[in-house]
Amino acid sequence: MRKEQDLLGYVEIETEAAYGSQTQRTLNTYPTAHVKTLGDYPLFLQSLLQLKKACALTNFKNNELSPSNAEAITAVIDNLLDELTTSAQHYFRIHAYHGGGGVGINMNLNEVIANLANQLYFDRPYGTYSPIHPNNHINLNNSTSDVIKTSIHITVIKMWEKLKQSIHHLEQSINGFILQYGTEKKISRTCLQDAVEISFGQMFEGYLYSISRHLKELQHNVNELHGINLGGNIIGRPGDCSAEFYENILYQLSGVTQNTQLFRVDNLFEASQNNDVLIRFASGLSQFSSTLIKIAKDLRLMSSGPETGFKELILPAVQQGSSAMPGKINPNIPEYVIQTAFHVIGLCHSIQITQMHDELDYSPWQTFVATQLFDAMHLIMDAIQTFSEHCIIGLQPNTAQNLKNLESIIPTMVQLSKQLGYAEASNIYKKYNGNLDQIRAFIRSSQGN
Amino acid sequence: MRKEQDLLGYVEIETEAAYGSQTQRTLNTYPTAHVKTLGDYPLFLQSLLQLKKACALTNFKNNELSPSNAEAITAVIDNLLDELTTSAQHYFRIHAYHGGGGVGINMNLNEVIANLANQLYFDRPYGTYSPIHPNNHINLNNSTSDVIKTSIHITVIKMWEKLKQSIHHLEQSINGFILQYGTEKKISRTCLQDAVEISFGQMFEGYLYSISRHLKELQHNVNELHGINLGGNIIGRPGDCSAEFYENILYQLSGVTQNTQLFRVDNLFEASQNNDVLIRFASGLSQFSSTLIKIAKDLRLMSSGPETGFKELILPAVQQGSSAMPGKINPNIPEYVIQTAFHVIGLCHSIQITQMHDELDYSPWQTFVATQLFDAMHLIMDAIQTFSEHCIIGLQPNTAQNLKNLESIIPTMVQLSKQLGYAEASNIYKKYNGNLDQIRAFIRSSQGN
Amino acid sequence: MRKEQDLLGYVEIETEAAYGSQTQRTLNTYPTAHVKTLGDYPLFLQSLLQLKKACALTNFKNNELSPSNAEAITAVIDNLLDELTTSAQHYFRIHAYHGGGGVGINMNLNEVIANLANQLYFDRPYGTYSPIHPNNHINLNNSTSDVIKTSIHITVIKMWEKLKQSIHHLEQSINGFILQYGTEKKISRTCLQDAVEISFGQMFEGYLYSISRHLKELQHNVNELHGINLGGNIIGRPGDCSAEFYENILYQLSGVTQNTQLFRVDNLFEASQNNDVLIRFASGLSQFSSTLIKIAKDLRLMSSGPETGFKELILPAVQQGSSAMPGKINPNIPEYVIQTAFHVIGLCHSIQITQMHDELDYSPWQTFVATQLFDAMHLIMDAIQTFSEHCIIGLQPNTAQNLKNLESIIPTMVQLSKQLGYAEASNIYKKYNGNLDQIRAFIRSSQGN
Amino acid sequence: MRKEQDLLGYVEIETEAAYGSQTQRTLNTYPTAHVKTLGDYPLFLQSLLQLKKACALTNFKNNELSPSNAEAITAVIDNLLDELTTSAQHYFRIHAYHGGGGVGINMNLNEVIANLANQLYFDRPYGTYSPIHPNNHINLNNSTSDVIKTSIHITVIKMWEKLKQSIHHLEQSINGFILQYGTEKKISRTCLQDAVEISFGQMFEGYLYSISRHLKELQHNVNELHGINLGGNIIGRPGDCSAEFYENILYQLSGVTQNTQLFRVDNLFEASQNNDVLIRFASGLSQFSSTLIKIAKDLRLMSSGPETGFKELILPAVQQGSSAMPGKINPNIPEYVIQTAFHVIGLCHSIQITQMHDELDYSPWQTFVATQLFDAMHLIMDAIQTFSEHCIIGLQPNTAQNLKNLESIIPTMVQLSKQLGYAEASNIYKKYNGNLDQIRAFIRSSQGN
Repeated sequence: MRKEQDLLGYVEIETEAAYGSQTQRTLNTYPTAHVKTLGDYPLFLQSLLQLKKACALTNFKNNELSPSNAEAITAVIDNLLDELTTSAQHYFRIHAYHGGGGVGINMNLNEVIANLANQLYFDRPYGTYSPIHPNNHINLNNSTSDVIKTSIHITVIKMWEKLKQSIHHLEQSINGFILQYGTEKKISRTCLQDAVEISFGQMFEGYLYSISRHLKELQHNVNELHGINLGGNIIGRPGDCSAEFYENILYQLSGVTQNTQLFRVDNLFEASQNNDVLIRFASGLSQFSSTLIKIAKDLRLMSSGPETGFKELILPAVQQGSSAMPGKINPNIPEYVIQTAFHVIGLCHSIQITQMHDELDYSPWQTFVATQLFDAMHLIMDAIQTFSEHCIIGLQPNTAQNLKNLESIIPTMVQLSKQLGYAEASNIYKKYNGNLDQIRAFIRSSQGN
Repeated sequence: MRKEQDLLGYVEIETEAAYGSQTQRTLNTYPTAHVKTLGDYPLFLQSLLQLKKACALTNFKNNELSPSNAEAITAVIDNLLDELTTSAQHYFRIHAYHGGGGVGINMNLNEVIANLANQLYFDRPYGTYSPIHPNNHINLNNSTSDVIKTSIHITVIKMWEKLKQSIHHLEQSINGFILQYGTEKKISRTCLQDAVEISFGQMFEGYLYSISRHLKELQHNVNELHGINLGGNIIGRPGDCSAEFYENILYQLSGVTQNTQLFRVDNLFEASQNNDVLIRFASGLSQFSSTLIKIAKDLRLMSSGPETGFKELILPAVQQGSSAMPGKINPNIPEYVIQTAFHVIGLCHSIQITQMHDELDYSPWQTFVATQLFDAMHLIMDAIQTFSEHCIIGLQPNTAQNLKNLESIIPTMVQLSKQLGYAEASNIYKKYNGNLDQIRAFIRSSQGN
Repeated sequence: MRKEQDLLGYVEIETEAAYGSQTQRTLNTYPTAHVKTLGDYPLFLQSLLQLKKACALTNFKNNELSPSNAEAITAVIDNLLDELTTSAQHYFRIHAYHGGGGVGINMNLNEVIANLANQLYFDRPYGTYSPIHPNNHINLNNSTSDVIKTSIHITVIKMWEKLKQSIHHLEQSINGFILQYGTEKKISRTCLQDAVEISFGQMFEGYLYSISRHLKELQHNVNELHGINLGGNIIGRPGDCSAEFYENILYQLSGVTQNTQLFRVDNLFEASQNNDVLIRFASGLSQFSSTLIKIAKDLRLMSSGPETGFKELILPAVQQGSSAMPGKINPNIPEYVIQTAFHVIGLCHSIQITQMHDELDYSPWQTFVATQLFDAMHLIMDAIQTFSEHCIIGLQPNTAQNLKNLESIIPTMVQLSKQLGYAEASNIYKKYNGNLDQIRAFIRSSQGN
Repeated sequence: MRKEQDLLGYVEIETEAAYGSQTQRTLNTYPTAHVKTLGDYPLFLQSLLQLKKACALTNFKNNELSPSNAEAITAVIDNLLDELTTSAQHYFRIHAYHGGGGVGINMNLNEVIANLANQLYFDRPYGTYSPIHPNNHINLNNSTSDVIKTSIHITVIKMWEKLKQSIHHLEQSINGFILQYGTEKKISRTCLQDAVEISFGQMFEGYLYSISRHLKELQHNVNELHGINLGGNIIGRPGDCSAEFYENILYQLSGVTQNTQLFRVDNLFEASQNNDVLIRFASGLSQFSSTLIKIAKDLRLMSSGPETGFKELILPAVQQGSSAMPGKINPNIPEYVIQTAFHVIGLCHSIQITQMHDELDYSPWQTFVATQLFDAMHLIMDAIQTFSEHCIIGLQPNTAQNLKNLESIIPTMVQLSKQLGYAEASNIYKKYNGNLDQIRAFIRSSQGN
């Protein structure tokens, strides 16, 4: 064990550990048995490292960082970026949304980079912090507030690309169903009661349209997320980083992240005060999840049966449905999708609650918002993928049942109403006292004329 | 117009208005076009007046209030209690949950009682506040904090008696259905797919049991609500009212409210810090509402049809179902119940949010909690009453359909599984490749043996 | 009393009542003691009437309605439009979100217009429904589904204009404060702990930016709400109204509502399946409400005092703060705003819940969504208006306190850190063991050098 | 790879895998990269295994299971129980809340136990299912519905014992603070404004009382959770297990789980229809979390400073507070507690949503409810433990500041009001126009008399 000192006194750290006192205190303080750690979010870690690299490059270009220090720092970061899901995870084992507004995460990055750089390039043991110091050099011109928020935005943008693909896949699967079965007619229902004739294509194009609007609105939010606050360190004030840094950091960051659409937000104070942009995106995810529930429940209802339900749709069987009822098949995939959507809605609910608890000049909840959001995105991505592959692909109408349904009374009455007007059609219904057979007989006889 | 002065300066008040400067400022400050006013909650107003009467009686008994003042005050309160839903409403037109922790409500009471008493018994014009002063005499030994909370508890207890009766009515209606149709068999479903045989009685006794547990738990909460904090004025400190008042007020309050089960809570500071007891009750209401949604949706689903749905239950028709589809009947009452339950859940959600925003020594949100809760109780009461009368009474099974359903494959397979074991039953199902007719034929032949 | 017959049998109606059997059944079925009625939403009623007028005009132009019938219908509607908040309310007393997907509302319109037109223009008693029939003529080419949804959209658009003005007013008030006091310095805080120097202008421009983004996003949603589904009656099928009607109705509707930006949505089935566009707007309102809570709580915290709190801001006093503590003034307006925001969030929560309960081809919850949304908009509008007028206007910094705060240790350490680097500044802090006076002495001495 | 066949066809399984076709299909269907698996909940797994053991013992006693089969089964289960967090996890890698109502979990248990027993005791390769069959023997007299729910209840009861200890620890920590500092006086605040004198003991006893009531109510819910539905297999019907099993299973289960307080619920149909008892417990957890937020925010506010905040309380420092501001210390632990509480509230929100989606005879959401609840309990347990150890223990009042606060104007005015009455005290305040120094001078002079 080695000892390091900070404002609070001495901390014992394993000799082999590349992090320092601040990270160790974070490890000591927050239990991680039942939560994810920073290392469990490799894409977030990647974004954080990319950001620190962009800062080092900028500081080097501006002569605020010596060439040797800059070389050491960027090389070390490049190594870490290569080992994101392997050895790097060990360095970043702190509670992913501990208290204090994310300072533990930022310092974990600063300390690990500093120690590794001092060791590898200057042969100094961990804990030396010289020539490279976590705060003076790695944190130079950047600070917890802007480091964390900017990295969150970049991570969400990366994850969105994958989620978008899943949504496109879902759209394609539904489209495939429409292409194959879209013209098949079925009965529609309002208030769960028989209504007019419709086609599977008409119904599922409704789903598609709804999904595509969610996609469009989520994309609209992601566009906003390209606005970042790096350079607005601490709480958004100009001048807490050097003018040169402020000027050049976005160019470097765009390069390192290969994202040329990043821009700095118009108001850096607002970016520090709250997480509105992330919360709006989370709210959009929650609404999208509700729509997934609606569609999954529809499929579940339309495939209810095999004999006493609606039985107008047949879902691909994925699993036997009961340990006690032989032959039973359940709508497992829709139920998995529904439960995942519940999960996502819960995560987004906890995100939205934070908005009421933001206060004064800095929202201390941003790592919490981020990790819940990352989890929500992963969950929904997996669910959509499975929904497409194991349920939408392979979906079939039960044609015989659908044909039979179309001959039922209400679609027939609507036809009659179009010929005779509502009042007269209603009178006929009344005349036969709602007896469906007699009404059909009348219709047949009158059509015979 | 007359003028009154307070700490903030002069206020203009209509000469004929029995309230004073504090009430007028409340009226001037908070728009009431789209919210309820204090007078819109007559039972709450009744409880507030009863409490002020109990305070006056106690202060009189303890010689803290002169006989003539006490007589004037209690007589004026008795008049107001007689006119709760008529003329009294005019005196209490302020926003029902304005800011400031409810001080406006307490002062509205204090000012109106003082002015009316001075006028009627001492022939003094409004605004004189002598011999009777709103703060010195009406508010004597009581204060906003304990006045409001105690009155809320008493009001909820009163409303609960009515709500409990509605729930009992619902239970009786369901029992009536069970008595009449309980032995009729039907198919059950798990995961919306056909499962085993069950009876309507078994299913609806499940509903009854769930409702009765909600009732029991709500009663458990209401029992806690009998704990009040009158005497713990301002924030719960002993000594902010006189020792004699503290000793005797509960006796008087029990007499005036005819509620002998009221008791003082063990910890008066806690009673001021938060509204946990009310919130627990609201949470119970929200859960009960969710169960109402479940039951209403079940009825809606089981009555789906008339031809292409489950059609195993027939709801009493209350209304034509469409302006365009003659003959259509919708499950209107379940849908009304569901929407009302959504409404109640929303109100209780806003109540529950306040819990996270309580702070330090006093919860300023108690009038908000109260009015949302009163609204929720009214809504759910009306919905249950209508549900019982217009939907449960008159409910009928569709016997022919239910009989037919029982002959379907899954209930049959379960029977077979009981005879042969799951594995063998499953083999037979497999052997015939899930062809329902062939499986039935096999079963018939094997039963023939 | 007169009697009318419908599919369910005879209904008794007051002879003088202009509505018919369907409305009467709605009145008989749903208790309205504790909910709003259709007539309580005059702007919604206006939109519904305007829509029915546009339909009549279109049907007349297309020769589907005779000139005399069209004249009678439009004249009667014009009368009703003039009496929206007066006599018309009496005709529309049904529960505002009863069950059955809104058919009661549509038929209430149809019946009242038909009866009034038959009486006024053809001298027929109520209940005759000839020459003008509620379904055949008033409901011609339109139906509950598209009537209700289109009218909701139009109503929200109208209300939005007012709400937008309130938001602009709030922005102007904040701007006024910034103009007057924006350059005054204050301390900022992160995690509630003292941080760096900032100006009131910087902080409040953050608020402004957040508000303006909410405004922009809400406007974005309202733009979508201009997409309506009139012509997609029942569930979105082409052909349930005449081709001519479909072609021309938007022109008439734009004329009657004086809104030329209305367009027909791309997918009419989706418009019937769910209320996603309205729900997105509600979700935006909920998020805006959370931001209002944040700002109101900030003002409340910054004005905490008068002596032992933050006391860096002075709110205009609107009311004495206590019935027991003379001299006490509370942040009443922020608390009113916060509670109203809780209320709005609860309403929007109940709206969002419906999204998970949409099903198949028609969302039966649209009147519930609408009325909760109208209520939410009214509440937030009133709260913002009061917030601007009674709290933001008149807001003042406590200059002496703010100056004092700037001399505290943390802003000083940040200054030092900029000169010496974080590590060295930290060492000095450590050296003096956090003794603030000694650190200040060192700084003064070192600056002296 | 070996091949197994089920109703859906052939499935490929790794030769070494002890599970069978149903488990393999579950593994194949549901992605587990971003969710927990069954094996991640060792206590749940333990309860499931204990239940299967109790079933085997009961079936053996009743001669429904041969001695050799029973011996093999129970021995295998005992082995698994010994390896819960080690090798057993590998057998139970399926998605913890996959679709289909939990059948995958039940069959995973059945298949693993059957395969291991056949192999170890009868030397049969995996996939043989003879002499011991997953459904015929392991699932004998029990079924997914009652297996899952009963195991969930037993798991929550086990976890509650630990959570209860954490809560007791929190209570003891607060008590420790009260013992040490309880008599120290401080100012109280209502509506965030200065109010009357209070002691730390009075305030924190309020917290204690609130916590103890949450504890009592949670215990009340846990008592209900001792009611289980084993024996009510499929959907609660009598007769789906043997009469002897029904009679004796509770005795065995009590023995195996060493919990003699388990009893069978009165209504087994209700137990299948919904998860009300679990949801009530989750709702209680959510409310408790809100109270934790309140207390944590209070500590955060009272310790705000070090110079410009309330600064009446000093939290133990756990970490440096900023990467840019030397000397800054943040209230990290309260912020960690608050965020964890947000997390728990979100999880409980998703649990509560399911209640509205229960349907007909079986709630398919019970594994979802369970896993979210397990997660919530773990999170809150860890947070409370850390809160006690790193924040409550070590908490200190800032005595100098508290003394100073007590001399401020409002507490003084309240004293004056007690001597002179509210009206006269108010007049004095008015006379000096709110000038605090002059009022104090007057008070001193008048007290001097």
